[in-house]
Amino acid sequence: MGDLPREDPGNTLRILVATDIHLGYMEKDEVRRQDSFQAFDEICSIAEKKQVDFLLLGGDLFHENKPSRSTLVKAIEILRRYCLNDRPVQFEVVSDQTVNFQNIFGHVNYEDPHFNVGLPVFSIHGNHDDPAGVDNLSAIDILSACNLVNYFGKMVLGGSGVGQITLYPILMKKGSTRVALYGLGNIRDERLNRMFQTPHAVQWMRPEAQEGCEISEWFNILVLHQNRVKANPKNAINEHFLPRFLDFIVWGHEHECLIDPQEVSGMGFHITQPGSSIATSLIDGESKPKHVLLLEVKGSQYRPTKIPLKSIRPFEYTEVVLKDVTEIDPNDQNSILEHLDKVVLNLIDKSRRNVGNKSEVKLPLIRIKVDYSGFMTINPQRFGQKYVGKVANPQDILIFSKASRKGRNE
Amino acid sequence: MGDLPREDPGNTLRILVATDIHLGYMEKDEVRRQDSFQAFDEICSIAEKKQVDFLLLGGDLFHENKPSRSTLVKAIEILRRYCLNDRPVQFEVVSDQTVNFQNIFGHVNYEDPHFNVGLPVFSIHGNHDDPAGVDNLSAIDILSACNLVNYFGKMVLGGSGVGQITLYPILMKKGSTRVALYGLGNIRDERLNRMFQTPHAVQWMRPEAQEGCEISEWFNILVLHQNRVKANPKNAINEHFLPRFLDFIVWGHEHECLIDPQEVSGMGFHITQPGSSIATSLIDGESKPKHVLLLEVKGSQYRPTKIPLKSIRPFEYTEVVLKDVTEIDPNDQNSILEHLDKVVLNLIDKSRRNVGNKSEVKLPLIRIKVDYSGFMTINPQRFGQKYVGKVANPQDILIFSKASRKGRNE
Ligand SMILES: [Mn+2]
Ligand SMILES: [Mn+2]
Ligand SMILES: [Mn+2]
Ligand SMILES: [Mn+2]
Repeated sequence: MGDLPREDPGNTLRILVATDIHLGYMEKDEVRRQDSFQAFDEICSIAEKKQVDFLLLGGDLFHENKPSRSTLVKAIEILRRYCLNDRPVQFEVVSDQTVNFQNIFGHVNYEDPHFNVGLPVFSIHGNHDDPAGVDNLSAIDILSACNLVNYFGKMVLGGSGVGQITLYPILMKKGSTRVALYGLGNIRDERLNRMFQTPHAVQWMRPEAQEGCEISEWFNILVLHQNRVKANPKNAINEHFLPRFLDFIVWGHEHECLIDPQEVSGMGFHITQPGSSIATSLIDGESKPKHVLLLEVKGSQYRPTKIPLKSIRPFEYTEVVLKDVTEIDPNDQNSILEHLDKVVLNLIDKSRRNVGNKSEVKLPLIRIKVDYSGFMTINPQRFGQKYVGKVANPQDILIFSKASRKGRNE
Repeated sequence: MGDLPREDPGNTLRILVATDIHLGYMEKDEVRRQDSFQAFDEICSIAEKKQVDFLLLGGDLFHENKPSRSTLVKAIEILRRYCLNDRPVQFEVVSDQTVNFQNIFGHVNYEDPHFNVGLPVFSIHGNHDDPAGVDNLSAIDILSACNLVNYFGKMVLGGSGVGQITLYPILMKKGSTRVALYGLGNIRDERLNRMFQTPHAVQWMRPEAQEGCEISEWFNILVLHQNRVKANPKNAINEHFLPRFLDFIVWGHEHECLIDPQEVSGMGFHITQPGSSIATSLIDGESKPKHVLLLEVKGSQYRPTKIPLKSIRPFEYTEVVLKDVTEIDPNDQNSILEHLDKVVLNLIDKSRRNVGNKSEVKLPLIRIKVDYSGFMTINPQRFGQKYVGKVANPQDILIFSKASRKGRNE
């Protein structure tokens, strides 16, 4: 990661990176139904404002493999509003587009003469919107058929046994900058794991060396959508499996925002984990502020700039161990309820302070993980009734645990 | 219906009319899965070849209210291939487009500056693709969001009791020809019936009289999607309910091809019933040759030209009354099977003769309605086994009846 000279727009590829937007998440919830769409709208508006060359998405664009009519319509409306305009696209795709983009049109969307694409979007699929059925189609294929998204990274699993995949990068040129963009849509972790440990099962195609352009002049980006946490190494991908020629990795699927690129020791690349733009599980990791990343690449240098999302519903998380709370009398359930009520009210207050002065404040998500060892549990639905209209998730504010395990989800 | 002078293209609005395409019908059937898409492709290719001003669809474009990813992708691909091109659109929509087209964009698709629409499609919904859910969306709304179809005729049911609807026509001008196109997407027949019999419940908006254009100069077309058969008048719409100012009616939903416009006595209008482009029920009416209609309107005159569809799977239908067949011995089931086998083979032969010399002949649909009064029934699945690979529907060639009732379906 080096300093990037401030002024050289003709040779600097500007990419907005986001992931796990989960369009349609909670679409039937009266309070939260618009959350995923508002976040996507904000992300696209940032792409517009920052005048990026393209928007790169890391999978789980849709929450459901078969999105509802309503979710599809809203997704298309947002894309159409932001992606179609007269702004000239200032980079070229020089690889074989029929290999990169597997729809019947076989080209990058902004080269279609019948559409005015000003903001191209590139996306892989996640596990929520993975290809399925006889035709092996993802919901993202619908957006690709509409020419609104460039869907890439759908692997054909060839070979026998564990199988074999080949990654063909999208080769992009802007001025003197050359980026090879590799996409790897979600594959079951166990399977991909075994592939990575099988010689020749994962093939990485490299740009051909050409006169005036050495292979080392390409800046290599990978976007993937897999488990990264190491708790169960069988069900997660080890960063050290990835080839050392890569320069920068966008890790989708993990919802916690760890967006500042982290160096992987000995591998020579950095990883950004943008995290989801919506909390789909009310765990600690999802309560951190949500961001997207502006990635500017010039030659072999890049500058990452994280940009906070402002439309996100506030979410406050805490943990309570009942037996450590002195004011609670184990024989008096009211004393437990009173204590938890205080905790909830404090978190609501905290969420307001964090949001600051906004004209339209969203009801916050509140989650208290209660270690009830030695105590009776409380009915969470009944507990939540008094917070209707004050909290976005009154029905599941409380979650009970005995040991302090770490919850997780994608 | 008058003669149309052959040469006056600048003042002649040319419309291709089709209905009940049922995209996705039998999409899981190994043999028939492509039928609905091939028919739609052929219809669009006729529109292209005939250089019509637009394609008008009468509902049931989709067979399912929630089409599969695969059906959506194929529908979008076909529309994108035929509708987007550089051909100039030569008519104008002069009515309030935000009223006619209820998506957030609120304009006819070819006026969107970011798409090259050369063949506009206008469609109402049918009962198969009717709007539903909290957002009251039809699958056609997805195509409308993509800017590939101009979806109209979605009614807002206002008022109390039986309700009230208002039809705002799309007003089109081409040269000196003016067409007011009314759309009425499917409403439950019983309900619409009651509306038509309630004063002021159905409001027909007329174009405003303007200088140089009398109201009588508009040619008034209605497209609707309802039961028309009179068997049960409560569950069908009576043609005499429709207002006399109408000139021409496109009746969707009825799958039998009765495409030659029929005059309705005393009403002053003609009705075309194009019929479906795919047989969704194997009844006599659906075995007639399928057509679409080229409608050319100039001033108050029009010329209808029916065009046969060539990609349609052959379908032969007959009825057999077992007790009338002398060669059958009621005590010998083999004699029944032998007779029915002869009937099937004759129908297969007939289907080949009807198709003529085509390079790729599709397996025919064969349906025999068997009146088995006085006989034992036969297992239709078992009967069909020997026709696998010879008939498209081996599992349901035979249908049994006792009385000779007319089956029907939309
Ligand atoms: Mn996710
Ligand atoms: Mn995921
Ligand atoms: Mn129909
Ligand atoms: Mn119908």
